[in-house]
Amino acid sequence: MSVIEELKGIVGPKGWLEAPDETAPYLVDERALYRGATPLVVRPASAEQVAAVLALCSREGVGVVPQGGNTGYVGGAVPDGSGQQILLSLSRLKRIREVDPLDYTITAEAGCVLQEVQQAAAEVDRLFPLSLAAEGSCEIGGNLSTNAGGIAVLRYGNARDLVLGLEVALPDGTIWNGLRRLRKDNRGYDLKQLFLGAEGTLGVITAAVLKLFPRPRGRVTALVPVPDRAATTRLLARCRQESGDLITSFEYIHRVCLDLVFRHIAGTSDPFARPYAHYVLLELASGRPQAEVQAVVESVLGEALEAGEALDGVIAASEEQAAQLWRLRETIPEAQKHAGGCIKHDISVPVSRVPAFLEEATEIAEGLVPGVRVAPFGHLGDGNIHFNLTQPEGADAEAFVALTDQVSGQIHDLAAAMDGSFSAEHGIGQLKRAELRRYMSEAEVELMAKLKALLDPNGIMNPGKVL
Amino acid sequence: MSVIEELKGIVGPKGWLEAPDETAPYLVDERALYRGATPLVVRPASAEQVAAVLALCSREGVGVVPQGGNTGYVGGAVPDGSGQQILLSLSRLKRIREVDPLDYTITAEAGCVLQEVQQAAAEVDRLFPLSLAAEGSCEIGGNLSTNAGGIAVLRYGNARDLVLGLEVALPDGTIWNGLRRLRKDNRGYDLKQLFLGAEGTLGVITAAVLKLFPRPRGRVTALVPVPDRAATTRLLARCRQESGDLITSFEYIHRVCLDLVFRHIAGTSDPFARPYAHYVLLELASGRPQAEVQAVVESVLGEALEAGEALDGVIAASEEQAAQLWRLRETIPEAQKHAGGCIKHDISVPVSRVPAFLEEATEIAEGLVPGVRVAPFGHLGDGNIHFNLTQPEGADAEAFVALTDQVSGQIHDLAAAMDGSFSAEHGIGQLKRAELRRYMSEAEVELMAKLKALLDPNGIMNPGKVL
Repeated sequence: MSVIEELKGIVGPKGWLEAPDETAPYLVDERALYRGATPLVVRPASAEQVAAVLALCSREGVGVVPQGGNTGYVGGAVPDGSGQQILLSLSRLKRIREVDPLDYTITAEAGCVLQEVQQAAAEVDRLFPLSLAAEGSCEIGGNLSTNAGGIAVLRYGNARDLVLGLEVALPDGTIWNGLRRLRKDNRGYDLKQLFLGAEGTLGVITAAVLKLFPRPRGRVTALVPVPDRAATTRLLARCRQESGDLITSFEYIHRVCLDLVFRHIAGTSDPFARPYAHYVLLELASGRPQAEVQAVVESVLGEALEAGEALDGVIAASEEQAAQLWRLRETIPEAQKHAGGCIKHDISVPVSRVPAFLEEATEIAEGLVPGVRVAPFGHLGDGNIHFNLTQPEGADAEAFVALTDQVSGQIHDLAAAMDGSFSAEHGIGQLKRAELRRYMSEAEVELMAKLKALLDPNGIMNPGKVL
Repeated sequence: MSVIEELKGIVGPKGWLEAPDETAPYLVDERALYRGATPLVVRPASAEQVAAVLALCSREGVGVVPQGGNTGYVGGAVPDGSGQQILLSLSRLKRIREVDPLDYTITAEAGCVLQEVQQAAAEVDRLFPLSLAAEGSCEIGGNLSTNAGGIAVLRYGNARDLVLGLEVALPDGTIWNGLRRLRKDNRGYDLKQLFLGAEGTLGVITAAVLKLFPRPRGRVTALVPVPDRAATTRLLARCRQESGDLITSFEYIHRVCLDLVFRHIAGTSDPFARPYAHYVLLELASGRPQAEVQAVVESVLGEALEAGEALDGVIAASEEQAAQLWRLRETIPEAQKHAGGCIKHDISVPVSRVPAFLEEATEIAEGLVPGVRVAPFGHLGDGNIHFNLTQPEGADAEAFVALTDQVSGQIHDLAAAMDGSFSAEHGIGQLKRAELRRYMSEAEVELMAKLKALLDPNGIMNPGKVL
């Protein structure tokens, strides 16, 4: 019996696809940067089936590419073009196994859509805080495998920080049951850390115990123009200190981004009578009542105005107004798409260096591409800036995008010189493998390669990704 | 030249001790459970010297036992009795390399005493939240190597969660510079996780970048009698939810503990007119003013009284009163010492199962040792209970302590049956190696052993610990 037939036998008649029109959506990534081929998409319905698939592929030396919601930005979840790699979709593992409000935990299978996890938590009056643009379609297994970031990292941490336990199908086909619900557990090495953020190269996360938090009752959003870049980090430090660390999001928006939004996104408009160069979109949330949180925001912003760290401020008076403010931030990528070619970055630097990074990176970009529209935005609270560049007005999009390597090389060099990262939250996948070798030390890359060889000696797990 | 002479040459004349009266303090652990021997205590003054010591010992196959403040409870930092293992004290690496209030980070060398790290943070109006009884003498390198817990885990996480970057001397004598200050960084596998909580068996942490937090301005402590064990977890869930997660500590105290304290610790007294069976000591803290935090505590406890989750409550009206309440909790171990033989446990279970654990474990203990004084207390907010047993009044202490294996075996079995851990925060060291093999799956122990062999192929790092 061929391997393909054996795989079909493991997952049963509903568990596989091979017709090209059915497999096609699995073979191209979100940004359409990569297109791959596969002889078979397997869609197992249980961790045991996942393990059996891996055992077989391990025995036969067949590469396996795990895929969740397929919303990644670095081509980490699509196979190569050889047509030899099996695509392993986790989307049928979608059971919420347990929600425990006393424990503040939820146990979810890998294929649960992030929004489903959020909703299951909300139903017992709890918060699962991971939140990002793709939350309606990305899956929790993928979020954990890529250590997803998003808009609430400042308060709640990255995906890695939200995990208490994991169930993992190891490359040899055994299942490691590490589904612990413990807040403290010092029994030897913390094995789950190996699989978090490993992009499916060391095993397949099939389920996880996740931390929940009190569900905010009060939530206040504000858009705040600031006098210059340096004021952003001072305002952040003040907000953290004076609010009692209620701040959940602290997003930087450059005016150029807003101009693109106002121009290309219907129904948006400037909440201020005059333009400013730099804005911060911030949100505070708490289990305390709305009026209390509102009072905190007003007092903190009042102090910031006095200290010259803020020039003005709009505090949303309703959920609808808050959604409008968030829309200005969330539609930036779409607006950039309308404006033509875009060169994107996902850098992080120490928070205190963000102002200097923005200044120097802008100089570099404008020096390389006269007329470029530098449109940076992102999670300033985490030192994570999407330093995106929109093509000059009227320029040729393809010619502009062809400059990516040249421009990104210099931007990534700058980030490195500031002890920063060329991949803050999007991971390595296929897109940034060369950068990994360029910017990480030889000893680091070697240690990663040794870990890979230890856990996946046959090299079947997501070949050609990360390393 | 002998290895010993070569080691002396690496660390220089001030960097070693060999006279028995000078090495003696390094050779016995905090609880005097283990006594070891060594030909040499080396006290390097830099990460480079640490690395050179490891390179030499690796070449010569000499075991190296890293030691910080030597305050551990499981014999993890003392050598065996062979007299062949070198003791590597990190205490001279005590520089705070950087404190950055805008970044909310501090970079400290391994030998900094925890309290010194806390103070350096406080000097720039920030909080380093790790806090535990030994903070005046334990060292941060040891805290990270053992993934220390303590009294603020509920709000701020374990030591592991407080780390952004590490500098590590690897067993082969290379230094890995992973001293990053990034809040988001997804460049491949997160190598620092390997060394956190590894108890010095995979390398030596020489410095770390740690997260800081806003320094609380308001801090309120309360002692709350509760009607029964089941009420504790409901009260916890309520406090987290209604306070806006301002709660930093949630400690359980059984009445038997308080009776021991009142009897053996001078200057303590019952703040209530009548005794209760179960108490919770809780603390809320925030960057907001004291009056605001006080109002939150009053409103939450008021609701808890109405809901029947609390029977009464004392809210500290001053820092002095708060210290008095904390003293009732912190002197329990000392009071237990005065009361004769004590069998200690460091278990954790899912938070929701703490009441059932307390009930069943008490039955087990009372069944095995008639008259035993069951005196549990601990970090209920983390599901971590120090289920300690004081000998029956007037019994023979040695005979009682001789029952440890029998009693602990059953208590640990119970914890395991509840998906719990026999080592919540104290680690494995020498003391709990047998338990590791008993309660962890074969696959887990095997994977740990493989990681050990990968990182420390010559087996020089803290031999005989953890595995």
